[in-house]
Amino acid sequence: MLIVKKFGGSSVANKERIFNVARRCVEEYKKGNQVVVVLSAMGDTTDELTAMAADINPNARKRELDMLLSTGEQVSVSLASMACESLGVPAISLNAFQVAMHTTSTYGNARFKKIDSQRIRHELESGKIVFVTGFQGVNKYDDVTTLGRGGSDTTAVALAAALHADACEIYTDVDGVYTADPRVVPNAKKLKEVSYDEMLEMASLGAKVLHNRSVELAKKYDVQLVVLSSLEEAPGTVVKEETKMEQMLVSGVTADKNTARIAIIGVKDEPGIAFKIFSMLAKKGINVDIILQSIGRDNKKDISFTVASTALKETLEVLEENKGRITAERIESDDQVAKVSVVGAGMQTNAGVASDMFEVLYNVGVNIRMISTSDIRITVLIDEADVDKAVKAVHAKFIEED
Amino acid sequence: MLIVKKFGGSSVANKERIFNVARRCVEEYKKGNQVVVVLSAMGDTTDELTAMAADINPNARKRELDMLLSTGEQVSVSLASMACESLGVPAISLNAFQVAMHTTSTYGNARFKKIDSQRIRHELESGKIVFVTGFQGVNKYDDVTTLGRGGSDTTAVALAAALHADACEIYTDVDGVYTADPRVVPNAKKLKEVSYDEMLEMASLGAKVLHNRSVELAKKYDVQLVVLSSLEEAPGTVVKEETKMEQMLVSGVTADKNTARIAIIGVKDEPGIAFKIFSMLAKKGINVDIILQSIGRDNKKDISFTVASTALKETLEVLEENKGRITAERIESDDQVAKVSVVGAGMQTNAGVASDMFEVLYNVGVNIRMISTSDIRITVLIDEADVDKAVKAVHAKFIEED
Repeated sequence: MLIVKKFGGSSVANKERIFNVARRCVEEYKKGNQVVVVLSAMGDTTDELTAMAADINPNARKRELDMLLSTGEQVSVSLASMACESLGVPAISLNAFQVAMHTTSTYGNARFKKIDSQRIRHELESGKIVFVTGFQGVNKYDDVTTLGRGGSDTTAVALAAALHADACEIYTDVDGVYTADPRVVPNAKKLKEVSYDEMLEMASLGAKVLHNRSVELAKKYDVQLVVLSSLEEAPGTVVKEETKMEQMLVSGVTADKNTARIAIIGVKDEPGIAFKIFSMLAKKGINVDIILQSIGRDNKKDISFTVASTALKETLEVLEENKGRITAERIESDDQVAKVSVVGAGMQTNAGVASDMFEVLYNVGVNIRMISTSDIRITVLIDEADVDKAVKAVHAKFIEED
Repeated sequence: MLIVKKFGGSSVANKERIFNVARRCVEEYKKGNQVVVVLSAMGDTTDELTAMAADINPNARKRELDMLLSTGEQVSVSLASMACESLGVPAISLNAFQVAMHTTSTYGNARFKKIDSQRIRHELESGKIVFVTGFQGVNKYDDVTTLGRGGSDTTAVALAAALHADACEIYTDVDGVYTADPRVVPNAKKLKEVSYDEMLEMASLGAKVLHNRSVELAKKYDVQLVVLSSLEEAPGTVVKEETKMEQMLVSGVTADKNTARIAIIGVKDEPGIAFKIFSMLAKKGINVDIILQSIGRDNKKDISFTVASTALKETLEVLEENKGRITAERIESDDQVAKVSVVGAGMQTNAGVASDMFEVLYNVGVNIRMISTSDIRITVLIDEADVDKAVKAVHAKFIEED
């Protein structure tokens, strides 16, 4: 079997943890498997390098930042390779150049285009454990690129796809994907399996286990992922195409407090007004989430939408600058809101989930401000203060009763 | 003009020093010159990385060590490039892959084979200051190699040769090459010029200003070097082919305390015995320096030679293991000796230097144990305790009187 393993920065933060990673890789190797290991930079290295750069030049070009940041993973992989060899197993470290992990040219947020598997295969066939730098690639100019935060997950999936690996294991601080945040819901259960689509909905809604792009890539190339603890040996959560005969109606309940609501009150009710507003925001790279438009009366209507709290200030600035083009009575905003969602592939064939969810929230006195749904997700916008109460009640209804 | 500048680790040890380097490069650039800058790793980075590796695996493969160490220079060049841009001048950092600095495959001690100038020329022509990682290269496997300690000097000279640079400036802690160590001889003078051969003799004899291989390479490709202070603005020392009409008889007086003397007493006087001994040592990579062989009598002779003090233990072990083949009466060693040399291209046409030197040493009561000469150098082995006295006296005779 060819197995790709990925360990994050906290898993290689010091000598002891590097040896812990090396030991797990050596165990896998000694079972007769070929092992490729993707590592992030040690501990807080990436943050420290970023701070050094910001201190020297707050407007440093991203090309130079990527050149700087990519050193972090190179340190991890060379040290881990040395650790493996001191445990008696041949190992080698490879950076993005050496593997030839070709990406687009967008520094700081590159995407993989093509990965050569020749060098890695050669090293595996010569009996080595192969450590590969996560988070980075090389573009057509031979320059170093990085994939953005969480990019090492994506590296692991991309390598697993390129190598047609039998498994892709993502080792994290948590030991799997839970039905809700265990800090909020003590009864939250670890999922044995979750589909790519469910994982994507959960990831984008605030369950910070896997980087979204890695799940998209895994879905595209049908790479089965396993999310595992880097500290304990316990079965994790498998992320794959949905195959269960009888699946749970709801796989998880998620909350996202990084949400703000904006209401444009009394807009002139004319064709194309919504397009005008949202294209202005899109041009600035502001992602709009839930959108609600009131039915017009007196030739006027209200348009509400949500953005990430972190984008609220810029959103209001854009609206203010374009006041003349929008001609609204006033603009309101509220940062004290949050999204709570239930996610589950089973909802596709079961119509009652939405009304059940609204009933549960009504029963615990939570007011719903906006609603958004997809095939496998129902999201409500509520007051931030109600989040824990809402998550607990919804989790009790759909997961604990199930 | 195209100028290659090289700054060592202490010149980029922190933010302030990185900006100091950036400012000097920007000044050069604003004079209308094209500027290529070779940097070492920041401060003690290389030592720290080496210690981390030794802690994880004291027998780490050199291939992995090079992978680790090469990150140090990549951090320096990216930060320096950011500093330049914050001073308003476009800059770019390149590592050995990106330049394509091809070396042999000997990890930890690689030699340059071929350097592509295309990428650097392209960046220079687009108006950028180009920062290049010193100390490292890439071999035919696409693996990172390093050149060994002091390799950044060699990188600078190799780049200057490949780019046909108009000048190659080596910035160091000292402001040039002196006629003697100023800490020992307060009257030591800074040399305006020194020939490649003189510099080579001085470097190998303990004047730690320039890495020897960089001088050899400069001589081979006729790259004129200037040794300058990275802290003050003052004219330095030019290292070039000898061109002076009237050159100084002696350019410098050097001392090297890393010397030990070994005497093999009462060796059987038969052909090939010296060859036998020195080939044994050569096989172990032990460099033998001065050799003295007594005239045989009673079918026996004595063979004395010097090695670096750091190689004394291993040398004695090799001799002990091969006692049977050497059949000597006994082996003596003495670590409390040192070499003092006078170096000067002018000696080639002036025969009196050796006898003058011996007379000076006799006058101050220094006993000469061994003598070795080349076209431009006279070296004597003396007691280590006499070194400062000898250097002062010889310097006074040949330089201060001159």
